[in-house]
This record gives sequence, C-alpha cells and structure tokens, in this order.
Amino acid sequence: MRGFAMKKIGVTGWVEKDVEKCGPLDAICRPLAVAPCTSDIHTVYEGAVGERTDMILGHEAVGEVVEVGSLVKDFKPGDRVIVPAITPDWGSLEAQRGFAMHSGGALGGWKFSNFKDGVFAELFHVNEADANLALLPDGIDPAEATMVCDMIPTGFHGVELAEVTYGEDVLVIGIGPVGLMSVKGAALRGAGRILAVGTRPNCVALAKEYGATDIISYKDGAIDEQVRDLTNGKGVDKVIIAGGDVNTFAEAIRSVKPGGIISNVNYLGSGDYVKIPRAEWGVGMGHIRIVGGLMPAGRMRTERLANLMVNGRLDVSGMLTHKLEGLDSIPEGVQLMKDKPADLIKPVVTISY
Amino acid sequence: MRGFAMKKIGVTGWVEKDVEKCGPLDAICRPLAVAPCTSDIHTVYEGAVGERTDMILGHEAVGEVVEVGSLVKDFKPGDRVIVPAITPDWGSLEAQRGFAMHSGGALGGWKFSNFKDGVFAELFHVNEADANLALLPDGIDPAEATMVCDMIPTGFHGVELAEVTYGEDVLVIGIGPVGLMSVKGAALRGAGRILAVGTRPNCVALAKEYGATDIISYKDGAIDEQVRDLTNGKGVDKVIIAGGDVNTFAEAIRSVKPGGIISNVNYLGSGDYVKIPRAEWGVGMGHIRIVGGLMPAGRMRTERLANLMVNGRLDVSGMLTHKLEGLDSIPEGVQLMKDKPADLIKPVVTISY
Amino acid sequence: MRGFAMKKIGVTGWVEKDVEKCGPLDAICRPLAVAPCTSDIHTVYEGAVGERTDMILGHEAVGEVVEVGSLVKDFKPGDRVIVPAITPDWGSLEAQRGFAMHSGGALGGWKFSNFKDGVFAELFHVNEADANLALLPDGIDPAEATMVCDMIPTGFHGVELAEVTYGEDVLVIGIGPVGLMSVKGAALRGAGRILAVGTRPNCVALAKEYGATDIISYKDGAIDEQVRDLTNGKGVDKVIIAGGDVNTFAEAIRSVKPGGIISNVNYLGSGDYVKIPRAEWGVGMGHIRIVGGLMPAGRMRTERLANLMVNGRLDVSGMLTHKLEGLDSIPEGVQLMKDKPADLIKPVVTISY
Amino acid sequence: MRGFAMKKIGVTGWVEKDVEKCGPLDAICRPLAVAPCTSDIHTVYEGAVGERTDMILGHEAVGEVVEVGSLVKDFKPGDRVIVPAITPDWGSLEAQRGFAMHSGGALGGWKFSNFKDGVFAELFHVNEADANLALLPDGIDPAEATMVCDMIPTGFHGVELAEVTYGEDVLVIGIGPVGLMSVKGAALRGAGRILAVGTRPNCVALAKEYGATDIISYKDGAIDEQVRDLTNGKGVDKVIIAGGDVNTFAEAIRSVKPGGIISNVNYLGSGDYVKIPRAEWGVGMGHIRIVGGLMPAGRMRTERLANLMVNGRLDVSGMLTHKLEGLDSIPEGVQLMKDKPADLIKPVVTISY
Repeated sequence: MRGFAMKKIGVTGWVEKDVEKCGPLDAICRPLAVAPCTSDIHTVYEGAVGERTDMILGHEAVGEVVEVGSLVKDFKPGDRVIVPAITPDWGSLEAQRGFAMHSGGALGGWKFSNFKDGVFAELFHVNEADANLALLPDGIDPAEATMVCDMIPTGFHGVELAEVTYGEDVLVIGIGPVGLMSVKGAALRGAGRILAVGTRPNCVALAKEYGATDIISYKDGAIDEQVRDLTNGKGVDKVIIAGGDVNTFAEAIRSVKPGGIISNVNYLGSGDYVKIPRAEWGVGMGHIRIVGGLMPAGRMRTERLANLMVNGRLDVSGMLTHKLEGLDSIPEGVQLMKDKPADLIKPVVTISY
Repeated sequence: MRGFAMKKIGVTGWVEKDVEKCGPLDAICRPLAVAPCTSDIHTVYEGAVGERTDMILGHEAVGEVVEVGSLVKDFKPGDRVIVPAITPDWGSLEAQRGFAMHSGGALGGWKFSNFKDGVFAELFHVNEADANLALLPDGIDPAEATMVCDMIPTGFHGVELAEVTYGEDVLVIGIGPVGLMSVKGAALRGAGRILAVGTRPNCVALAKEYGATDIISYKDGAIDEQVRDLTNGKGVDKVIIAGGDVNTFAEAIRSVKPGGIISNVNYLGSGDYVKIPRAEWGVGMGHIRIVGGLMPAGRMRTERLANLMVNGRLDVSGMLTHKLEGLDSIPEGVQLMKDKPADLIKPVVTISY
Repeated sequence: MRGFAMKKIGVTGWVEKDVEKCGPLDAICRPLAVAPCTSDIHTVYEGAVGERTDMILGHEAVGEVVEVGSLVKDFKPGDRVIVPAITPDWGSLEAQRGFAMHSGGALGGWKFSNFKDGVFAELFHVNEADANLALLPDGIDPAEATMVCDMIPTGFHGVELAEVTYGEDVLVIGIGPVGLMSVKGAALRGAGRILAVGTRPNCVALAKEYGATDIISYKDGAIDEQVRDLTNGKGVDKVIIAGGDVNTFAEAIRSVKPGGIISNVNYLGSGDYVKIPRAEWGVGMGHIRIVGGLMPAGRMRTERLANLMVNGRLDVSGMLTHKLEGLDSIPEGVQLMKDKPADLIKPVVTISY
Repeated sequence: MRGFAMKKIGVTGWVEKDVEKCGPLDAICRPLAVAPCTSDIHTVYEGAVGERTDMILGHEAVGEVVEVGSLVKDFKPGDRVIVPAITPDWGSLEAQRGFAMHSGGALGGWKFSNFKDGVFAELFHVNEADANLALLPDGIDPAEATMVCDMIPTGFHGVELAEVTYGEDVLVIGIGPVGLMSVKGAALRGAGRILAVGTRPNCVALAKEYGATDIISYKDGAIDEQVRDLTNGKGVDKVIIAGGDVNTFAEAIRSVKPGGIISNVNYLGSGDYVKIPRAEWGVGMGHIRIVGGLMPAGRMRTERLANLMVNGRLDVSGMLTHKLEGLDSIPEGVQLMKDKPADLIKPVVTISY
C-alpha cells in the first residue's frame, strides 16, 4: 500500500507499507477526499510531535469502508463515511470522565499522523469503527465533508469552551480555517457582536460572511487596545484563540470582562510558558477562566455536525479555495499548506475510483 | 392619568388613576410602543391570575423615561428604554439563587398587569430602574423592540432550558409568537433539524424563515407518532413547549430520546395535573428532564437580546403583522389578540408625542 | 453452571446452564459476594420487566476474574473486582451523549437480571471488562463493596441529579438502602438540613447517623405539609425521591421552592402517569425541574465511589443487616428481600472457595 | 466614632471619623466579633491595594444592627447579623451576569477595608442590607460566625470553582485558614483522597481533622513530583491553590490530569505573570482549566453557609487559636496576623456592650 509520509523531520515522500490489521472493532477505509492541515506542516517541518520515521500523514478524510472487524455492527464495506481526526478509545477512563480526546493520556485520541499512520494513503485503519465513524449523509459532497473531520469541530469547540450565549460579545483571534469556524460557530450559538482578528483579505471576507461584525488587524496595534476602543472600554464577554502563540493570551486577558472566558483551540508549538498578566487577571480573583482543548470526536458528535450541513445551517464551500484531484496530488496539497499562498484557506484532494 | 384596564374578570375599559410614586430606585416612563400579549387575554377573559379591579393591562413596552428616583444612576428623563415584562427585585434571595424572575415567590418578578398597573397607560412605574431598564439602541425601531420585552426572551428561554447544542434535533410545539422565537432561538443555538408543530399558514411560513425544517400539524395525528415517523423512530433530542395545554407533555415525553429535555415556556392556564406517562418516562429512570420557567429579565439580559437585533442576527419584523397608532388604539390591539384573526401574529401600538 | 433464576413470573429456582461465551472485550467472573436487590423482587414477583424464562437473577456482585478476552488489557484471571449493576456499551451513541446507562435505548445499560443472566451463579459474564470492572481496593471487605454496585451509585445519583450544593435544605423521600445512600450522599455534597421520610426504626437510626437532621413519617400527614411546618412555610431547595410511587411526585412538588429540583431514583413499577400539580408547579413556569435517572456506571465511576470507602468518607457496614454464607444461601437472601423483616436493611451473601 | 485604620502604607492607628450616612437601603451596625485577615496585612504593610489614608481596616464581622434605611424590610435595630466581607451591588450588570463580587468592575464587591471604611470600628456601614446581611442563627457563637464572613466562603469557593465531585482526588496547596476551609469544603463535596500542602504542625493537624489524607511539605521537593509519587504517576483530578505565589501554578499544572481544573483563591500580591508551562498544559489542548475568583457573597449564600454550622456539618472552633476581648484589642489581633506566631491560625476579637 502506498502512502504519503513524513520520512523524518523536514522530509516527506511516498512510502510503501502494509495497512494495520483490522481488529474485531476496527475498519479499513480508502479515501474519497482528504484535506491537508496546518498540523501536518507543524509535524513534518517543525517536528512538533517529535521525530517520526515513515509515518503516513493526514487526519482529515472522508472515505469508503472496505473491511470491518467481526464485532462491528453499524458499518459495512461500501459505506461512505466521515472519519474524524480524533479517534478515541471509548471505554477508557478519560472518556468516562468526559474527555475521550485524551484517552490514554493528554491528546491520546489524536492518533492519525501523530503516532499512527494517517489517511494520505490508499488505505487507512480506523479503531472502534462503530464509535468513531459517521455515515456521510446523502447529498453532502465528500470534499466539503472533510471539514467535519477537524476544522468545524475544532473551531466550534472554541465556542463551546467559551460557553458563548445569546447576545454576548466575542473576540476571535485568528481567522485561518479554524478561526473562521469559530466565527461561524459563535454566530450559531447566538453571539451578538463578533470581533475577528486577521488580515488576509479572503479570510476577512469569509469571516464577515460567517458573522464577524468587526475586523481587527494586529498590525494596527495591540489587540486589547483595539478591543477596548471598540467596546467603550468594556471589553468582550469571551475570547476564542484560534491563532497566534503563547504571547497571545496576555492580549486576550486584557480584552475580557471579569467573569469572562479565554478559550484556546490553537496548537501551541513553541515557547516555554503561556504568560497570564497577574494584575489584569484580577490578582487571581477575577473569575477569568482560561482553558484550551482538543476537539471532541466520536460518531454522535460527527453526525451532529454533519446534521448542520444537511439542514443548511452551515456552508463550508467558501473554505475550500484549492481543489485537487487524485491521490497523487496529495503532495501538492501539502505543499500548498506549507507555502500558504495569499488566496489559500484550505486545500482538499478528491479521489475517484 | 389614563390607562386601559381590566375592570374585573371579563371586562376591560379606560380608567383614570395616579401613577405609582417614584421611589429612590425607580423610574416613571411614558410608552413609545406597546404590544398586547396573549397573557393579557388570559388575565382578563379567563381570570387566569384571579380577580383584579381596575388594574391597568400590558407588560410589553418601549418607553421614554420621564422621572427617575434619587438613587438611579444610569438613566435620566428623555432616555428611550426597553422595559422587560418581568421586573425582579435584584437583591432578593431568589435572585441570589439564580431565579430573579421568582423574586418574592413563584413568578413574583411578573408585576406589570399581574399585581401592579401595566404599561397600557399614559405613564407607568418601573421598579429598580438601573437593574431593570435597558437603553433602546440607536437605529432600532421601538415597535420592533417591544419583542425584546417578552416574546424573544420567553421563546429563547425555552431553548436555554432545553440546553440545545450544535446539531441537535429539536421539536418546538406551538408556533405562535413565542414558539416562533423558540424556533429562531434554536437555530441561533445551532440546532440541526427543527420540527415545528403548527397550522396557521403565516406562522408556518415564518417558522420556516426562522429555521424550521419540518412542519407538523396536530391535525394529522399524534405529534409523537409524526415525530417518530420523521426520525426513523429515534425521536428528537429536545422538546420546547410553546403552546398546547397540560396534555401536551405526554406527547412531548413520547417524542424525546433518553437523556432528553422537555422545556416549557407556555403558561398553563387550566387543568389539575400535567401528566407524565410512567413507562415512556423510563419508569422514572430515563433521564428525561422536565422543566418550565418564566423568562429571565434584567438590564444585562435585555441589552444582550437587543444586541442580537443591532448586529443583524435577529429580524422580528415578520412578527408584527398588525401595526396601530396612538394610545387610543390599544383597545383595538387587545381585541385583535382576543379575536386572533387568521393573519395575526402580533399587534403593536406605536405612540407619538 | 448453576444459577439461581427467575423461572417465570412468580417462580424462582436453581437452573443449570452455560455461561455466556467470553468475547474479545469480555470477562468471566465468579462471585465473592452478592447482594439481592428490591429490583430482583419486582422482576420476579411483579413481572416488572416482563416475562422471563430461566433468567439468572442478581446484579450486585464483587467477584474474581476467571477468564478475559483477547483484547482485555487491564484485568487478568485472579483479579478481585467490583461489578457494577449497570454495564454499558461505551462506544454507543448514548454513551457519547453522556448517558451510557441508556446505551442502545432507555435503561439499556441494565443488563444483568434484566435481559442477560445475572450474578447469582457460579460464573457470570461481563461485557467490556476494561470499561466496566474496577479492582477491589486492598482492605475493602467484598461484602461491603457490593454496596458500590448499585446502592451507593443509585442513592448518590439522586443527589447529583438534584445538584445539591453547600448549605441547601434537602428532602429525601424513602430511607430504604437507596434512600439512606441519598441521605449520606447529600451530606457528602454539603447539604445543610436533611429531612428524611421514613418510619422503620433501624432505617431512621441509620439515616440520622448518615446525616438526616429531621425525620418525617408519612403516617403523620402529607409530606409537604410537614415540610412546610418544619421550614416556616419556605419549603426545601431540593427533593430526592427514593421510595413511594407515582403519587409521591405531587407531594415533592408541593415541598420545593421555585427553582428547585425533584430528582427521582425510584423504579416506578406501576401507575399510568406521574402527576404534576399544575398550579404548584408554577403554572409551568416555576423552574421546578423534574428528572429521574438510572445510576451511572463504568470503571472510573466505580473506582471513585470505592475511593470514598478507602479514604474513610463512607462506611456502609450499618447497611448490611443480614450476612449469609455460600452460594446455596442466595435463595434465603432473596426471600429476606421479599419478606422484608423489620430489622432488614440489606442482605449480603459471601462466597468462599 | 473611633476606628482602627490604615493611616498610610505601613502605618496603622486609631482614627476618629463619622460613619457613612445610612441610605434608604443601608444599615449601620456595631461589631460583636471581628477577625483580622491576612488581607489586612497585605493592605497595610505591602500596599497591595495601593495607598490609602485613614481607611478603617477589617472585613470580617458579626454585628448588631443599630440603624436601617427606609427601604430595608428584613432587618431592624437589635438584630444580630453576619456581615460578609464582600458586599455587592445586586442590581449591577455584573451581578446579573452571575458575578456579583465584581459589581462595578473586577473585585468591586470587595468594599470594606479596600475602598470603604471597614469593620474595625465602633460603627460600620453596610450597603443593601436586605441583600447583604444574614441573621446570626440562634446558638451560633459570634466569634465562630466570623468565619462565615470570608474564610469559609473563600475556601469553599475554591472547591466550587474546581467542581469537585464524588471520589475525586484533590490537591490543596496551602493550609492557612483559607486552605483549611478548602480541605473541609472538598471533604464536604465528596472528595476521595485530599492531598494538602503545608508544614505548620497545628495547621497540619487541623487539615487532617478536616479530611486531608496525605500531607505534602514543599520542603521535601517539588509539589508535583510528590503528587506523582503518591498517585502512581497519575496526578490528581483537581487542584485548589490557597497559598503560594505566581509560581505555584506551574506545579499545579504538572500535578493534574488532562481535563482537570486548577482553582485559585489566593490573592496574588506580586509578580508580573502567572506562568503556565506550555507542554504540560497539553500544548494548549489538554482541557486543563485555570480559574480563580473572589468569594461569592450575599444573604442567601451566607445563610446557607451558616446553615452548615447550625446543622453540625462544619465546626470552625479549631480555627480560632487566639481569642481577644474588646475593641481595644483589635491592634493586638492585627499584630498577631502580622507576626504569625507558630501556633496561630486565626485570631478573633469579641466585643461586649
């Protein structure tokens, strides 16, 4: 079987290897559409998860089931399925505590292209198929459905962690594909004003389409100063961090009201410490909650997010700026994600058989 | 001062009386726009809250402040304000428990046209002005803003009590003005499919505009049977009851999944008991939660709901089917609410000075 | 293999049958201690779950693992384990929604002695062993640990559903073994006053030991009238129903403040409807939440409850009024549960090898 | 009127000044018992809240009402009352958002000895008496009841913010009077194992009495290493910080499981930043929540906490190591708090008339 892999830090290439054996609860799928993710770039070129050898990349896929284990009840070969980026062990203690994404340890549910071969291959293996796969609903384009694997659930999770409610003012820092989904997710949770921080024209345009009411550029000064200016000094109710780095949190803290929430869905790849400004954090007593988390996954969640597309609540077509065809164009998709041309939001590769 | 009152059960008419004295925390307002409510009809013609003598009706108003008490800090004569239907005592034990609407006892925050003169008058009194009023935002039509007094917060509260989350399937029973706002509120909390129960063509059309995906008519059989048919026997995640009577709950219970929520925002005017079918309620162990509650109010809440209108998330213009002019047309508005002509959703009366 | 079974409604007896095959995720155990439950009596003598033929009874057991499936990682033959009464399918949609106990449908996690052979046998089968079993901690008596299977998690779940917080006044209706655990669970969540309804002297004594501050007898009049008398007419913050029948809810509603919660952990075996008094329920708008649910289970939960015993927070020795020895005394234990002699709280049968 | 004041940073002394005027909602009280707090020391000797001139100190008092405003309904001269340290404005937007303690801005509910004269005086003023005072229950010693003003609600709030549930393992860092109340509060929320960090022998002894199962000394190495050793490398479910400084958070993060909560109730008096270690915080995606907050207050809350004492759930007598008599001994009490002799937990001053 052929797959596009991280050969070692800084080096990608095609590899030939066997797909993992299908256990009694598992499924083997072939891809119908896959999308490269910024994480793939971090993994290969920044060594974000450490050294890996010939590990197949990719964790956003819609596929077709080709084999299922003996205990799989709800899927069969030929089924077209959405495969979430995160595939937890559902019986784990962490799952029972409400944190399936951390099954077996922090971020342990993130297996594809982390410590298991990913989906940029002729075939890929899915653990606990009944619990982790969701049927692709009729009428949903596989390319668009790849957004359900990671971008939608990650962006929306920022909104959930921020516990956005009706009429709240929300600041979204970063409007790459995840941040755009946080903007849309905030609108879909009833946010009032949505202030979005970003500069790329196509992202700004899409952010407005998704519900952003104010656009802030970090080039125009400190984010928190601009937020204070725009809100008569009051600040916002909630902040969602979908871009930036460890230093972004200080600006977030300075932008939020007492009792507010700072919610992070940005992978922090470098820096020793996230620094929380003591005084603005209410000398430790201001009830400003800081939290960040990996996306929730699972069949139920995935079905629900797809349900939003089925019912016309969510249109991700504007996200897919670059559409490629065929397994062989995966390297080109990855390169796009690395180069980030000005008009890129998200590339997707469709595979026909 | 002149006001349109319930003279006694079954009888309305104009009365002449003094407005309540303005205490140190209070305000006196004159109406800019008022909207009759079904509750006014229940109160007068069904005696729903018991006998009353010469009590001025009305609890949905946008007004202008004409006087404030000595301790009022944030409002002054001339301010244009949204006046919520519910005006709690914010220092009460109930408010401190999170249930300001029940300050002083169940439903105790509902004062206007219940145990205090209402807003269908030349002047009306508002307790705890700083805590209960909200400035009418620039650019918002006073007539439309009357929907922030009761219809929006009540309809949306049904969604909040149901804890609707992304992609859930929600059943809304009743699509009068409150139910329509529950439909819109469910869409604004990220519901997937929204099944709405109703038959009046204009309400059906507006429900679809607000996000209903399926329309159910109670004339076509039991609601729960239709829900089961539409959902492959699975039922919905949540049910919001915004119409019907004490018997509606049994159909709701039969429509929902284990772990679901039945949320009621419908005033139950008659019947001894709400009856919960034992077996379908999981013999008491199915985690189907049943709850109902009066709308939350207060300045913060009201500002947030108005914020949705300001930011273009919520358009209530379709609700206002009948627009009248002048204090003297209030009786006509009340009569419309009583007669419910086929094309009525909500009447509103605008008053100029 | 020999087991003590429901032969048909109204008839028990020993049966000889094979234990279910051990699948890759499963375990086979032999019992070290088992406890009959009132549910066993309802099942056999009232046909509460319908007709059953030669179904082995019992769902409260501490056991020793004798066989594990090929995919079981955390348990091995010889391990001594607590076996919860409820053994969910952890990958199910319901589990992912937070209601593992309803996996596959309402109450679907309740398998033992419901639609699967129970634990009153030489051997019994446990599905998803890694997710459903918990190691018996060193130093915990197996007989006492049987209370972790059902009585503690069910009684405590009543407190959880009631969301009891510091200093709240709580009414516990019914002080059989489940209700006693609700009393103790309420004290362990920081309840202030705990009013307990019951009459049997040994239960009353144990309720006081567990934290009840006031004892109410239903023989002295309506519960809610006594509650009102004891609380200066204010009522309690929360009510936990651990006994009674469908008519108990009306008294509960009448006992609680606006914004309160009625939480049920009592299996409602008969009656068509639970009846909620409309007016006292705040005409549907009093924010009185009514909910009932089967106990949560799983290894994590079971470990946590055992953790309370290990750390001396919870002493269940007073619950075990009748101790029997040997598999052959199981029928005697069941008979005790049926006859309910005056001094019985809970019988337990210990089995040595 | 005479009061013991901060004359300027570093200097205390008696001052003579008028008590604030009693507004319509207010009350004037005289103290029956007062307790100096570490915050008083921070305020005077470290200038923690900035410069102040002749500001009367003290925010923990039980008093007797001597005057009430015209709109006060529930209190009258002669009533003996508990006066919480925090006295919010209950109609404020922040209170309506659920954060009354931040009314008017971060920490704005903290008035006494911050930006208003405190309780170490012959008379003191209480805003919104009906909402902020609670009757001293019969049979409760005023000296002990001073613990309800700050130590109990602050310590317990750490447990609430940590959302401690049945059987969880909890780490409490710091066992001064607040940390001791966090230990007791964790036990009263059903914690399993409670690991407490501290070294003073009397505090260690009282921590054990309140439910600590393991004592950790920071002198024996990094806290997180000791926690890992004691928990087989797993860490704890929750951490409550009731002592230490901005550097304590890193050890807390390293001690907690994915999905855990770090809850702070320690006033952070110095340091520019709280530093969160990026990697151990799950690269921003480990769902480790960090939050800190000022104690909730209000009559309802205060009544509930007193209810725990009335019902024998909570005995604070061990906290009161130093008992003084008479207004004139207040300086001695403050000096004790400054000097912290080895046997001090909390001094209290009782005043008779």
